[in-house]
Amino acid sequence: MQVAVVAVGKEVLTGKTINTNLMHIASNLKTIGVDVTRSFVIDDIKNEYFKILDFTTEDIIIFTGGLGPTVDDITRESVYDYFNVDTFLDQSILSNIQGYFDRMNLKMKDTNNKQAVRPIDSIVIINDEGTAPGVYFEVGNKTIILLPGPPSELLPMIDQVLQLIKKKFDIELFSEGFKLVGTGESYMESKLTDFYSQHPMVNVAPYAGLGEIKYIFTSPSKEELHNCKEDFYKKFNQFIYGSLDDTLEGVVVELLKDKNLTISFAESCTGGLLAGTLVNVSGSSSVFKEGFVTYANEAKIKHLNVDQKVLDEFGAVSSECAYQMVEGLQKATKADICVSVTGIAGPSGGTEEKPVGLVYFGVYYNKEIKTHRFVFNGNRSKVRNRSVTYALNLIRRELLDE
Amino acid sequence: MQVAVVAVGKEVLTGKTINTNLMHIASNLKTIGVDVTRSFVIDDIKNEYFKILDFTTEDIIIFTGGLGPTVDDITRESVYDYFNVDTFLDQSILSNIQGYFDRMNLKMKDTNNKQAVRPIDSIVIINDEGTAPGVYFEVGNKTIILLPGPPSELLPMIDQVLQLIKKKFDIELFSEGFKLVGTGESYMESKLTDFYSQHPMVNVAPYAGLGEIKYIFTSPSKEELHNCKEDFYKKFNQFIYGSLDDTLEGVVVELLKDKNLTISFAESCTGGLLAGTLVNVSGSSSVFKEGFVTYANEAKIKHLNVDQKVLDEFGAVSSECAYQMVEGLQKATKADICVSVTGIAGPSGGTEEKPVGLVYFGVYYNKEIKTHRFVFNGNRSKVRNRSVTYALNLIRRELLDE
Repeated sequence: MQVAVVAVGKEVLTGKTINTNLMHIASNLKTIGVDVTRSFVIDDIKNEYFKILDFTTEDIIIFTGGLGPTVDDITRESVYDYFNVDTFLDQSILSNIQGYFDRMNLKMKDTNNKQAVRPIDSIVIINDEGTAPGVYFEVGNKTIILLPGPPSELLPMIDQVLQLIKKKFDIELFSEGFKLVGTGESYMESKLTDFYSQHPMVNVAPYAGLGEIKYIFTSPSKEELHNCKEDFYKKFNQFIYGSLDDTLEGVVVELLKDKNLTISFAESCTGGLLAGTLVNVSGSSSVFKEGFVTYANEAKIKHLNVDQKVLDEFGAVSSECAYQMVEGLQKATKADICVSVTGIAGPSGGTEEKPVGLVYFGVYYNKEIKTHRFVFNGNRSKVRNRSVTYALNLIRRELLDE
Repeated sequence: MQVAVVAVGKEVLTGKTINTNLMHIASNLKTIGVDVTRSFVIDDIKNEYFKILDFTTEDIIIFTGGLGPTVDDITRESVYDYFNVDTFLDQSILSNIQGYFDRMNLKMKDTNNKQAVRPIDSIVIINDEGTAPGVYFEVGNKTIILLPGPPSELLPMIDQVLQLIKKKFDIELFSEGFKLVGTGESYMESKLTDFYSQHPMVNVAPYAGLGEIKYIFTSPSKEELHNCKEDFYKKFNQFIYGSLDDTLEGVVVELLKDKNLTISFAESCTGGLLAGTLVNVSGSSSVFKEGFVTYANEAKIKHLNVDQKVLDEFGAVSSECAYQMVEGLQKATKADICVSVTGIAGPSGGTEEKPVGLVYFGVYYNKEIKTHRFVFNGNRSKVRNRSVTYALNLIRRELLDE
C-alpha cells in the first residue's frame, strides 16, 4: 500500500525549519514494508488541503502540523470538512489537555477546545509531549492520520501509527538492525550481492551516516529475519558495533565500565571534540577524568613531553609525534587507555607528502603503544568529525581484542 | 509571484536523507521577496513528473535532483517532454564535463552525454562541484529551473538562480541581516512591535537557531533598508555579533587575532566541546594553543590547583570552583584570556538547589576574574551546546568591553 505525507505550515515553506518529520515517518514505515510514494508541503489555507486531497491517490494520507490551538491551525477542520465526517467533542481528550495546563500551572484557553474534536469511530493517537493528540480514521478506502508538527511531539507517536497501520492492513512484519563503523556503503554493497539473493524473504536497507552505516532488516518471518541477521553478523562482525539504539560513544563507555577502565585523550586537530563526544554519554564521568587539548607544538612539549627533535624532524603530524603524545599522556594521567590525535584538518596546511585529511592516532593500552594513520575526505569539519569516529572505533576494537 | 519546489528521488521518500535543499532555496528566495507556496517530493517515474506539472499552478517550478548520468536520472527528459521543448546537445557543457573527469583522472562515460542536453533558448546554471549543470528556461507563462540534488552542488548555485529570477520578474530588492546571541525570539518580538510599523517598506524575518537568532531585512529601497538596519542596530547592538556570513566562533577568533591575544579553556561539563568549536575556525591555531578537559574533581585539583576545601564546601558546580579553575588555568597556560566551564548537563545529578542545566563560567582577562551563572533548558546535549554558545558570547563581550 502507498502513503502520502503532507506537512502543513509556513515554517517549512519559508525555510525556517527543515522537515525532519518526513525522514522519521518514512524510515519507520519502511520497517513495516510500507512506502511513502509522495510528500507535500502546503500552506495552512483550507483550499490547499482540498486541492491536495483531490490530488492524492494514496491509500494512507498522513498530515503533520496544524493541530495547535490558534486560528492558523486548521488541519482538523479542513480534513474533517473535506471528507464530511461527523465529529464530536471528546471529553476525555479535553480533560487530558486540562491536566497538561494544570501541570504547567497555566490556565487553559477556550481555543484549546477544538483540539478535542475528532470523528466518530476515529482512534486517538496519544501525545505525551503536548496538548494536540493525533487522530486516526478511515473514510471510504482512505486511511487518514493527523499528527502534530513539532518533532519532539510527533516522534514518540510514530510507534502508535505503525501499530494502527499494521492492524488495519494485516501486516505482520519484524524489523531489526545493526550499526556499523569502519566501512563504507560501496564496499558493503559489493560484498552483499550474493547475500541479497540468499535472503529473498528479508528486505535489507542501508542508511549511511558520517563515518557510520546502519542496516535495517525487515521480514514477515521471524526465523528468516533471525537467519539473515546471523549471516550478516558472521560476515561483518568486525564492523558491527551495536544495534539500532546504540551510539558508538555509548558502546565505548559501556565497554570501559564493564572492564573498570579509565580513559584520557590528547587532542590536536580534533581540538577537544573527541572528549566532547564521549562526555555526551550520561555517566561517562566514571571512566573519563581528564584530557588535554594540545593544539600548539609548545603545548605538546609542555604537557605531553614531546621532543622538540621529533617535531623538528618528523613534524607534529607524524606517527612519531602521535606516539610521544600518547606516551606523555599516559605518564601525566595514568589512565588505563590513552588516545592521541594529530592531523591536518585543512583547508590549508596540506602538502603533497602530507595532504589535508591526514591524521595520526596513538593508542596506549596494556603497556603497549600502537599508532594508526588515515587520510579522511571532506572539509575541515568532516575531517575532524570522521577523526572522532575513527578514534572511538580504535578504542572499541582495542577493548574487544583481549 | 509563486514558486513550487519539487524534490525528486527515493533517497528523500525512503527517509535516507533529509530534504535540506528546500530550506536553503526557500530562505534565499525570501530575501528577494519571493515565496515558496508548495513543495513536493516525488519518485523518479516519468508519470509522476507529468502529474505534478499538471497539478502545479505556480509561476516558477524548481526541480531538485535527477540530473545525474544514470538511467534513474530522468528529470531533464521528463520535463522537456512534458513541455515539448526543442533541445540540443551543448558541446561546451560536454567539454566541461570532460574536464571534470580529466581532473579526477577518470574516463567519461557515454551516459554523461545526456547531462549536456538543454532546451534551445535555455540558460545554463553553472555547477562547479559536479558534472550536472542546472538549466533555466521559460515556456509559456512558466519558468522552469532544474537543479542537482546533492546540497554540496546545489547550494553554490542558488545565487545564480536568484539573479535569473530577479532579472525575469524585474525584482529590485536588497537584503541584509544580523546574527544575534544572548537573546530569545519571544523577547525580541516583544521589543519589535513598534519597530515593524516604523519600517513598513522593509520585510523583517527572524530565523531562530540553537542559542542564536538571525534577522533578515529585505526591501526594494536601499535607503529604507539602511535606515531599518541602523535602527535595529541601535536597539539591539548588545546582542548583535555579526552579519549573516559570520559565525560566533569565527568572530571570537577574529577579535583575538586583532588584539593579538591567546586563549585557553578548562572544561568540565562541556568536556572539550568549547575548544572543539573554536578549533573549527581555520586559523585558530594563532590564538588557541592548549586547553584542559578536567571532568573529574581530581583533574581539577591536579591541573588547575582547585582546593579540595572548595570542592567539599561548595561543590564542583559553583562560582567558587569556576573561579579557581580559571585562576589555575591562567597560571598553567599564561594565556591572555582564560575561560572555565563547570555545570550539570544532566540527565541526572540535579537537585532542588542545583538543578540540571545549571552552569558556572569563569573568565580571566586583564588580570581580573569574573564568574557567571546560567541555567539552561533542554536535554544533556542542548545544555552542553548552549553552554558553548554562552561561553563564546562571554568572551566576545569581554573583548569588546575595552
